[in-house]
Amino acid sequence: MAVGNDQVRFELAYYTLNPKIKVIAPWRLPVFYERFAGRNDLLNYAAKTGIPVSSTKSKPWSMDENLAHCSYEAGILEDSDVSPPADMWKLTVDPLKAPDKPEDFAVVFEKGLPVKLATEGKTITDPVKLFLTANAIARRNGVGRIDIVENRFIGLKSRGNYESPGLTCLRSAHIDLEGLVLDREVRALRDQFVIFNYSKILYNGLSPEREFLEESIVASQKNVNGQARCRVYKGSFTVLGRSSETEKLYDASESSMDEIGDFALSDTTGFISVQAIRLRKYGQAKKAKGERV
Amino acid sequence: MAVGNDQVRFELAYYTLNPKIKVIAPWRLPVFYERFAGRNDLLNYAAKTGIPVSSTKSKPWSMDENLAHCSYEAGILEDSDVSPPADMWKLTVDPLKAPDKPEDFAVVFEKGLPVKLATEGKTITDPVKLFLTANAIARRNGVGRIDIVENRFIGLKSRGNYESPGLTCLRSAHIDLEGLVLDREVRALRDQFVIFNYSKILYNGLSPEREFLEESIVASQKNVNGQARCRVYKGSFTVLGRSSETEKLYDASESSMDEIGDFALSDTTGFISVQAIRLRKYGQAKKAKGERV
Amino acid sequence: MAVGNDQVRFELAYYTLNPKIKVIAPWRLPVFYERFAGRNDLLNYAAKTGIPVSSTKSKPWSMDENLAHCSYEAGILEDSDVSPPADMWKLTVDPLKAPDKPEDFAVVFEKGLPVKLATEGKTITDPVKLFLTANAIARRNGVGRIDIVENRFIGLKSRGNYESPGLTCLRSAHIDLEGLVLDREVRALRDQFVIFNYSKILYNGLSPEREFLEESIVASQKNVNGQARCRVYKGSFTVLGRSSETEKLYDASESSMDEIGDFALSDTTGFISVQAIRLRKYGQAKKAKGERV
Amino acid sequence: MAVGNDQVRFELAYYTLNPKIKVIAPWRLPVFYERFAGRNDLLNYAAKTGIPVSSTKSKPWSMDENLAHCSYEAGILEDSDVSPPADMWKLTVDPLKAPDKPEDFAVVFEKGLPVKLATEGKTITDPVKLFLTANAIARRNGVGRIDIVENRFIGLKSRGNYESPGLTCLRSAHIDLEGLVLDREVRALRDQFVIFNYSKILYNGLSPEREFLEESIVASQKNVNGQARCRVYKGSFTVLGRSSETEKLYDASESSMDEIGDFALSDTTGFISVQAIRLRKYGQAKKAKGERV
Repeated sequence: MAVGNDQVRFELAYYTLNPKIKVIAPWRLPVFYERFAGRNDLLNYAAKTGIPVSSTKSKPWSMDENLAHCSYEAGILEDSDVSPPADMWKLTVDPLKAPDKPEDFAVVFEKGLPVKLATEGKTITDPVKLFLTANAIARRNGVGRIDIVENRFIGLKSRGNYESPGLTCLRSAHIDLEGLVLDREVRALRDQFVIFNYSKILYNGLSPEREFLEESIVASQKNVNGQARCRVYKGSFTVLGRSSETEKLYDASESSMDEIGDFALSDTTGFISVQAIRLRKYGQAKKAKGERV
Repeated sequence: MAVGNDQVRFELAYYTLNPKIKVIAPWRLPVFYERFAGRNDLLNYAAKTGIPVSSTKSKPWSMDENLAHCSYEAGILEDSDVSPPADMWKLTVDPLKAPDKPEDFAVVFEKGLPVKLATEGKTITDPVKLFLTANAIARRNGVGRIDIVENRFIGLKSRGNYESPGLTCLRSAHIDLEGLVLDREVRALRDQFVIFNYSKILYNGLSPEREFLEESIVASQKNVNGQARCRVYKGSFTVLGRSSETEKLYDASESSMDEIGDFALSDTTGFISVQAIRLRKYGQAKKAKGERV
Repeated sequence: MAVGNDQVRFELAYYTLNPKIKVIAPWRLPVFYERFAGRNDLLNYAAKTGIPVSSTKSKPWSMDENLAHCSYEAGILEDSDVSPPADMWKLTVDPLKAPDKPEDFAVVFEKGLPVKLATEGKTITDPVKLFLTANAIARRNGVGRIDIVENRFIGLKSRGNYESPGLTCLRSAHIDLEGLVLDREVRALRDQFVIFNYSKILYNGLSPEREFLEESIVASQKNVNGQARCRVYKGSFTVLGRSSETEKLYDASESSMDEIGDFALSDTTGFISVQAIRLRKYGQAKKAKGERV
Repeated sequence: MAVGNDQVRFELAYYTLNPKIKVIAPWRLPVFYERFAGRNDLLNYAAKTGIPVSSTKSKPWSMDENLAHCSYEAGILEDSDVSPPADMWKLTVDPLKAPDKPEDFAVVFEKGLPVKLATEGKTITDPVKLFLTANAIARRNGVGRIDIVENRFIGLKSRGNYESPGLTCLRSAHIDLEGLVLDREVRALRDQFVIFNYSKILYNGLSPEREFLEESIVASQKNVNGQARCRVYKGSFTVLGRSSETEKLYDASESSMDEIGDFALSDTTGFISVQAIRLRKYGQAKKAKGERV
């Protein structure tokens, strides 16, 4: 068993929080790893000494479960071409056995945070209950399973399986709503820069740039106010519609009318002509060199 | 009806291909748009003169269909909170009415291109047939519907619905396989830089940077050789497993063993210590200023 | 004379500030531009009617001067291979005629803003006076001339000459100080993302993303506290040294000592071994395929 | 003395080239570094045993010199506020003692590579001679000194001084010429993506993404054909003019004329109106919320 990402990001976080802390990681001490050469030695030791473990010979993989997700790796999953066995998944129903009727709900966001979830006549606003309800809806409809070959901080590739039922729904609803309420270029900057880098540093456990990025995230979310109506069904999540009472960047009537303020259809001719200046020069230059565009 | 993206990107492409071309766009000429004030005037004129159109009063939206996809916009879809009606979708079966049994198939990629598709005992290698087969599989299983508020080149937001059944499967399989065979940093650069910008310029119809980016794409795909085993089921797509006979960046045994070449578990201690240098300095600096990490 | 960037960014700013404003730009009205076909017609009209203009037949270029800079373009400068004539530059002394003795000064920054400038025994803290002093120092030493072929928003290339004496010094001092006090990754994100995009939107006059980026800039500058000692001499600017009383990311003793907290030299062996995992896999893969690294 | 970047990037390169190589780094072995606690112990040992070293008690810093540059660090330079002493610099004349007359030369580039250097009636095309000539010109005019606080791969900040005389001239000429011949967006992508990342991986010694990036660089340089006329003078480098016989993206007459193909000045009105759509919506939204733009 090689080095997982957890020990790296955990230790880095500890050193940041307390630069003088001393971390003892038995797993990396020769006295330990020379005695326990691999998973089997550890399972045998656990069996012999009565230590309870979730990984067994019949379920040969490791699991980490918390409120947000459960992860599975190692054991038979190390063959990237082996499908996770049906009985591995702990949190979500098999999509094939999920209800035949879709389940609909709505999530309201304020400044990018989910603040209300409406389902079956109930409205939930308590953050933890909201999250647990999203989890429950997704779990019973088989939503949130992930199977991926990822790249650990230390440079090894690793196959991981994850269940993040509620998060999958909330994130998908969030991204959809942003389409309605975020300015195009703010979103482009956020997508290319903030999402990409924030994922990376969370995965690796790095702090100084996390602080900087989080302030950028807050700055990007001021206008993410509105609601997404959602549907889950046999493993899939879709948005049925989205709306905002406060944000007005999208307006059905304007996007369908002939005029927007001083904008006339004929203005587009000038827009295109000007955009074409650079492209025409490019086309001319290619032609002059006898190259295909 | 405001200005769609098609006329912009089409005209820009024409000007690039032939810088001296003259494009006549009736839609933007006052003589035309003052006579036909909107969709209804056009439908009436079409009815009166016997011009066949797909958009009708009972199906009040516009459609563009080709081998890869069908798009729907305008009409009742302009209300971003209205769900597309069930009878709008032309290409894909309603996920709720899709078969109760999942359908599995495998796609083989060479240098990032799909070159083989295996399904139900058949193996397809002809590029067009391969694409049509992917389309057929996805269509009968309800895969590839998209509902989104997008940002047109001209700066207006617009609600669009799309069906791209085969492409959804091929792209998802491709991305999954890349996890197995692409170097971490090559993929990171490709994700952050090439995908983001290539999408943007295809959407807008820009050429000089397209040429540059396409050479970068080719450079990134040399090692994207291998197979993804795929499943579609009632609207969802999943990968069951992925493998490569030629690419060796992932190796199940190495990722699970105690040693990789000269790499010992104890080396990770040094790795973490060195990574922690910057974080400890940060933690110390925050502490000295009395700030929370 | 084609379309400069100023009219574009000015108008865009006006429309943002007051979406209902109506801008009349004579330069783009046929009734105007058909009467005045180019610069010469305008100069003739100005001469005939007694309108004072800075651009003359002996100084055939246009100028815009303000507190921060002066720009020169058009006229003979349109030949990108023609050097700007010595008598064109208005703000700065010719470097060849600048004093033979260098001039030194120091700038103190707080949260990234210049708050103090010390020169020849004087200390200036008033923002405008500080800026004017930086201007004066740079001007008499020939610092801040720029000669560049740039890319206008409308897609045309254009040759511009600029003098921005004080800004050149303050920006260079700022960038240098950041090396001392900014975390490596915060700076990398700021360099790649914020600087690049902020320059672009200032040049083009775009507002929604400017607001977002400015909050990111503030977030990045919290620790940019310290002083840069600067020298100007016959057109060049250099930093003589930099220091900070409050920021401690750089510490001469630590960077030269054998140990930093728990960091031992031998840890680097582990760091390198782990960094090498990905590279060794790459090297092996290339070798197996008979390719050169 | 802490860990420099050289040992990291050198070792990583060796492991890539030969994944089975074993590197012995005395500097990181306790048996070595416990005997030689720092620079002084090493200098004493060198003196005692007659090993010639460039770092002495009167010149207490380390140096690495090659064709391209010389680097200086450690010793008294570790105080980031201490200016490098005048007698430290080995390659370049002190700008204060450089000739009173500027020296001009021209560099011709093909596909981004310098292929010809013309100076004082001589024309040099041999690559090594060209580089040595650029070095000689820059050295005698005091061009190419760098003083910087940088961020090592291992996360420590470090103050370094460098002389890279010829490279400074060739790179500056190259960047200037690109303004004339590179498409705006190709350059933007190259600047934000390729330069930033290529610098980082060269500094750190990483290979898989280097291969990818180098193919992107080649793709970006196809049109970098032309000449920059350059001047060096007492430490500064400027471009006097630039031209290209083959590349036609910039054309003085077009950039000054009223019309470009089908482009009329009045088209800009449409361009601005369309660009303003998004900004007007933003302005309206801010106003409706009572916020300042």
